[in-house]
Amino acid sequence: VLKPVEVSELYACLAAVLKESSSLPEDMPQIKGYDFNQGVDHRALLQSFLTTGFQASSFGQAVQEINKMIEKRLEPVQEEQESCDSHSSASGCTIFLGYTSNLISSGVRESIRYLAQHRMVDVIVTTAGGIEEDFIKCLAPTYLGEFSLKGKELRQQGINRIGNLLVPNDNYCKFEDWLMPILDQMVLEQKTEGTHWTPSKMIHRLGKEINNPDSVYYWAYKNDIPVFSPALTDGSLGDMIYFHSYKNPGLVLDIVEDIRRLNSKAVFAKSTGMIILGGGLVKHHIANANLMRNGADFAVFVNTGQEFDGSDSGARPDEAISWGKIRMDASPVKVYADASIVFPLLVAETFAHNAARLIKEKNSD
Amino acid sequence: VLKPVEVSELYACLAAVLKESSSLPEDMPQIKGYDFNQGVDHRALLQSFLTTGFQASSFGQAVQEINKMIEKRLEPVQEEQESCDSHSSASGCTIFLGYTSNLISSGVRESIRYLAQHRMVDVIVTTAGGIEEDFIKCLAPTYLGEFSLKGKELRQQGINRIGNLLVPNDNYCKFEDWLMPILDQMVLEQKTEGTHWTPSKMIHRLGKEINNPDSVYYWAYKNDIPVFSPALTDGSLGDMIYFHSYKNPGLVLDIVEDIRRLNSKAVFAKSTGMIILGGGLVKHHIANANLMRNGADFAVFVNTGQEFDGSDSGARPDEAISWGKIRMDASPVKVYADASIVFPLLVAETFAHNAARLIKEKNSD
Amino acid sequence: VLKPVEVSELYACLAAVLKESSSLPEDMPQIKGYDFNQGVDHRALLQSFLTTGFQASSFGQAVQEINKMIEKRLEPVQEEQESCDSHSSASGCTIFLGYTSNLISSGVRESIRYLAQHRMVDVIVTTAGGIEEDFIKCLAPTYLGEFSLKGKELRQQGINRIGNLLVPNDNYCKFEDWLMPILDQMVLEQKTEGTHWTPSKMIHRLGKEINNPDSVYYWAYKNDIPVFSPALTDGSLGDMIYFHSYKNPGLVLDIVEDIRRLNSKAVFAKSTGMIILGGGLVKHHIANANLMRNGADFAVFVNTGQEFDGSDSGARPDEAISWGKIRMDASPVKVYADASIVFPLLVAETFAHNAARLIKEKNSD
Amino acid sequence: VLKPVEVSELYACLAAVLKESSSLPEDMPQIKGYDFNQGVDHRALLQSFLTTGFQASSFGQAVQEINKMIEKRLEPVQEEQESCDSHSSASGCTIFLGYTSNLISSGVRESIRYLAQHRMVDVIVTTAGGIEEDFIKCLAPTYLGEFSLKGKELRQQGINRIGNLLVPNDNYCKFEDWLMPILDQMVLEQKTEGTHWTPSKMIHRLGKEINNPDSVYYWAYKNDIPVFSPALTDGSLGDMIYFHSYKNPGLVLDIVEDIRRLNSKAVFAKSTGMIILGGGLVKHHIANANLMRNGADFAVFVNTGQEFDGSDSGARPDEAISWGKIRMDASPVKVYADASIVFPLLVAETFAHNAARLIKEKNSD
Repeated sequence: VLKPVEVSELYACLAAVLKESSSLPEDMPQIKGYDFNQGVDHRALLQSFLTTGFQASSFGQAVQEINKMIEKRLEPVQEEQESCDSHSSASGCTIFLGYTSNLISSGVRESIRYLAQHRMVDVIVTTAGGIEEDFIKCLAPTYLGEFSLKGKELRQQGINRIGNLLVPNDNYCKFEDWLMPILDQMVLEQKTEGTHWTPSKMIHRLGKEINNPDSVYYWAYKNDIPVFSPALTDGSLGDMIYFHSYKNPGLVLDIVEDIRRLNSKAVFAKSTGMIILGGGLVKHHIANANLMRNGADFAVFVNTGQEFDGSDSGARPDEAISWGKIRMDASPVKVYADASIVFPLLVAETFAHNAARLIKEKNSD
Repeated sequence: VLKPVEVSELYACLAAVLKESSSLPEDMPQIKGYDFNQGVDHRALLQSFLTTGFQASSFGQAVQEINKMIEKRLEPVQEEQESCDSHSSASGCTIFLGYTSNLISSGVRESIRYLAQHRMVDVIVTTAGGIEEDFIKCLAPTYLGEFSLKGKELRQQGINRIGNLLVPNDNYCKFEDWLMPILDQMVLEQKTEGTHWTPSKMIHRLGKEINNPDSVYYWAYKNDIPVFSPALTDGSLGDMIYFHSYKNPGLVLDIVEDIRRLNSKAVFAKSTGMIILGGGLVKHHIANANLMRNGADFAVFVNTGQEFDGSDSGARPDEAISWGKIRMDASPVKVYADASIVFPLLVAETFAHNAARLIKEKNSD
Repeated sequence: VLKPVEVSELYACLAAVLKESSSLPEDMPQIKGYDFNQGVDHRALLQSFLTTGFQASSFGQAVQEINKMIEKRLEPVQEEQESCDSHSSASGCTIFLGYTSNLISSGVRESIRYLAQHRMVDVIVTTAGGIEEDFIKCLAPTYLGEFSLKGKELRQQGINRIGNLLVPNDNYCKFEDWLMPILDQMVLEQKTEGTHWTPSKMIHRLGKEINNPDSVYYWAYKNDIPVFSPALTDGSLGDMIYFHSYKNPGLVLDIVEDIRRLNSKAVFAKSTGMIILGGGLVKHHIANANLMRNGADFAVFVNTGQEFDGSDSGARPDEAISWGKIRMDASPVKVYADASIVFPLLVAETFAHNAARLIKEKNSD
Repeated sequence: VLKPVEVSELYACLAAVLKESSSLPEDMPQIKGYDFNQGVDHRALLQSFLTTGFQASSFGQAVQEINKMIEKRLEPVQEEQESCDSHSSASGCTIFLGYTSNLISSGVRESIRYLAQHRMVDVIVTTAGGIEEDFIKCLAPTYLGEFSLKGKELRQQGINRIGNLLVPNDNYCKFEDWLMPILDQMVLEQKTEGTHWTPSKMIHRLGKEINNPDSVYYWAYKNDIPVFSPALTDGSLGDMIYFHSYKNPGLVLDIVEDIRRLNSKAVFAKSTGMIILGGGLVKHHIANANLMRNGADFAVFVNTGQEFDGSDSGARPDEAISWGKIRMDASPVKVYADASIVFPLLVAETFAHNAARLIKEKNSD
């Protein structure tokens, strides 16, 4: 039997549990998922993600955010401005795309190549591996393996593992054969023509040399999309440059001219959007450039990083707002997911869905 | 200038970098993503995931694994066996579906409801919230909010947050109004008819009472799919049972009969498949039941847990093989992802894609 | 050469980068780590964590939060209240400790056992594995292995893997030998004495039977600390109960009485603190009980879960505030870390550091 | 009642559950945590981590791995070799330390500074923020805030957030005041003395200029520890260089000479150890340099990344073995944890514990 004091405690308990609620705004979206009784309509399914909750909703919001970049991009630009403003972009929205190396190793490369091919993005930032793996894939394929394959056995067979991907070491030998004469030529041009090499110029040149429509950087070269990778020596390219420096020394790769070029892309843009897959350098480099313009207007991050360790990789977009890297009135979106699943789906619902309008715009430049 | 010893070290270095590779099996899949130049064909896009790498490949493998369950399920079963074997399942593959509470709060609920409605799964395991939130959603909606809304302000307004979802506290008051008379009735039946209540029997009864085709458990009731939730008191249901026990004491919920029932589902199945979304109890409970048959034949896990902390939630399927919870010759798949994105896509490419055959099979039972 | 419009854009850029700051409060702690030039003073090192940032600061805040629970616990309680209030706790702060099964498998068990032995916590919630693994360790040891050991090879040898731990299957055979006669006895008592078994009563009985000071639940039995585990059938205990039910049927384990008992612990407490290691049921069950009192006064969560998938496991304490599970004016702490590293260090700086005062208090009860 | 076929299935079930185990090796460590009944002995507590399981065991293994580096480092080196081998390190083990920028922002900086001060590591790799934040902290403090502070409000106040740290924007203005004259001087030296600037040379110069014993890079300068940061323009340093380039153009920062210098450190080392905190560039850059010598002999990674997304950041050490970045016979360790908690504890049990021997060795050089 409860004592009176206990009965009153029980009533307090009931009141805590059955606390009344204030009413929510009438236009607040209700949670509702896709009803498969209407058959499998993938487009409708992906549209239902917005009201599915959790990261499905974040995906839906990322689709909206990228489509805002695209609409801004398609807005007519004043003729005058276009003709006389040397640094200014002709586009209503300059889109910065960043991605880590592993995505070029994966089949996400084909989505990125599509964006470069149709000049749907304006500036690319990636790491050394994000450059070289694209060229290497033009020389020999990458294979599907398993995350759990043993490193020792793979090393004995000369097979390199990237997550669940496998790259035979011979691919890097082929890369060496292809690259060494180009390095010779670069040193020659530096010495004879005074070429001031930077990572972005080197990538532009390699894109021209590969001359292969499967390559992201072939299209970046063709469409004059600058590709920044300040630590370009951090990978197989660096290995080759290291060996080459003993045979034919003297190559200089300057990162100062590139930071000037990258920052100017942000400073002189009408508006900017950032699409960043993964963390580390590619995330910070694009966001930092956008600080130069008091923040990007639009932003979508896709990565698996978490904020708790204080890493820039895992930081929420709201941290970038505190720095002025994203505008205070923007509605940036982070999707917590592996980009290999999310990015092709995002491209389907944004750039590829608007391909006709975007390609027309490009051709009429 | 390098000394001879240094030159030899450089050669060793070159040899390390340019190590030759053994050849890989000829049928090894090459990494290749979707080419948007062929237009947006979502089905082809999702099929390209298998060769996209990382979790996209895991998604592709999960589609294959679930489709194997479905094919096994559709295999003809011997008449004789069917008629005289009381405990045996009539299905060639008994599919266990488990999911955490938050997925019922989200729009994934509609995908789960579809599976229950068409009896595409045979056994369901979820937590208390996974039960009650389904009924509550029949009484009042859940809304889309944001992860960063302040707890204190929400509490003052009587709004409960689940990730980026919002549930007004009034919804729980409505749930109380609905549930209390049913609890009275259950106590009465226990006293007068000797009903031996278990969590699965209570869920069956609530599914009948809700009598609403939006409800997962209405269909589980209609289609006689047992739903297990041994800690059924761990949620709003428990709150209500607690209050009710002061007004009308005596209800007993026994978990022993349910473990016997669940394990028998695994022991007497022809083959089994596990589809488990999230971790914790739902993952362990299904896997443990399958230990009773020396392991499930097929398994797909979708969650964001990691193995490094030794949690069962984050354990890879290979850990379950060591326990005999998955067969040694199985090819289980874990997709590291938020199920809100992945599960509707999985259903699209498996159960919904095979709906015609599966529903025909069900109707001919 | 820049045009005038470009120069003004550059100035805007400079202004964005060199934006002035408002001053911060003077008492704001400055970031400063430990200086090893003063030698290795572990206590001072752990105290420096508070101003080290990221999760080190969270650790420091968790130490403070638990020490607040301890101080509250040590506050004198009015005699009168103590003697006549049957449900009320004699302690100024009722501490709820929850942990997942894997922590009992690990060496964190010794820290937990210490807390139970000296009655430093009042209520324990864990999963089935969190119960049985403690008893099994009294019968045979668990070993250190590796996360990457192959499941198939382990199964062939009858070795079960839990993260990087290994448990020979023979340990479970020994557990069966020990448990079966106790189950017989429990069925007998139910039939002859009308014992109404609940999970907490069964755990109490097993703690008595094991009669081993290495066991957490031996001490919980000795010190009358209730241990709740509503899904007690979800593990080896359930396997044994299942087999036993064919030999000697009839055992009933009721979860209704236990929810009443658990909730009352929260409702009738003077103040409460929650210390929860890991997610899933143990996290939700303790927090839900504290909703019954309009929120815990103190809370520390240690886990590796993330909020982005909307799971209760990964939810920040602020989500619990929206539900009324933690008080609006509380200062709950989440440490994002594997408890195997963090919990022993937390115990060192809190309970063990205050052992003399806490043990004196207990003995003078 | 069960049918005979069902009884036999139950027996199979029992056999599956009670499968016998092969015996484990006798010297396999048993899981056993710290017993607080012996009082709080922090050193013994940290030693007990090795047999505590999960990441506590990984911590214990990391202590062992770093202590192996230290013992190797302390081995006597042949006189002859020392004197005539220009590129060779005088140390028996060349230790590469890498860390992300956020750790310099945090109090982990003091642990890193200690290592540089006493020349306990030989090569440092970090990102641009990892350089500039060290100097900025010499000019003004960083504060402890909260992860959940709103970006918009912080931006309005000119406060930048890094996880739960806060950096007033004024700190960056002070940094500008300090840096600009040095940049002028660098350009002058380039023009008049032909100085060929690289990121490592610039960091060396800044370390000299800061002239402050709180600075990591002051000690790196004093002790001639090269610090590599190929993307040195990716941060506030890049902002300043960008602005400066409009006032005083011409500075060149070459990354080719640095990759040659870094790789030579690995190629000509007697043995190498890698200690890498965090992911991204710093992890890849050190590992790639060690590929040049067919793999590091010792390796410890501390980070929170996961392998499932195929990122290099999250890759297990075993992936690096497949590339030849770690030796096939090495025993590398990854600790899945925030370095803010783990690294100071690691330093306590390794470098600081062996300080007397290490500092003696250094002084006798």
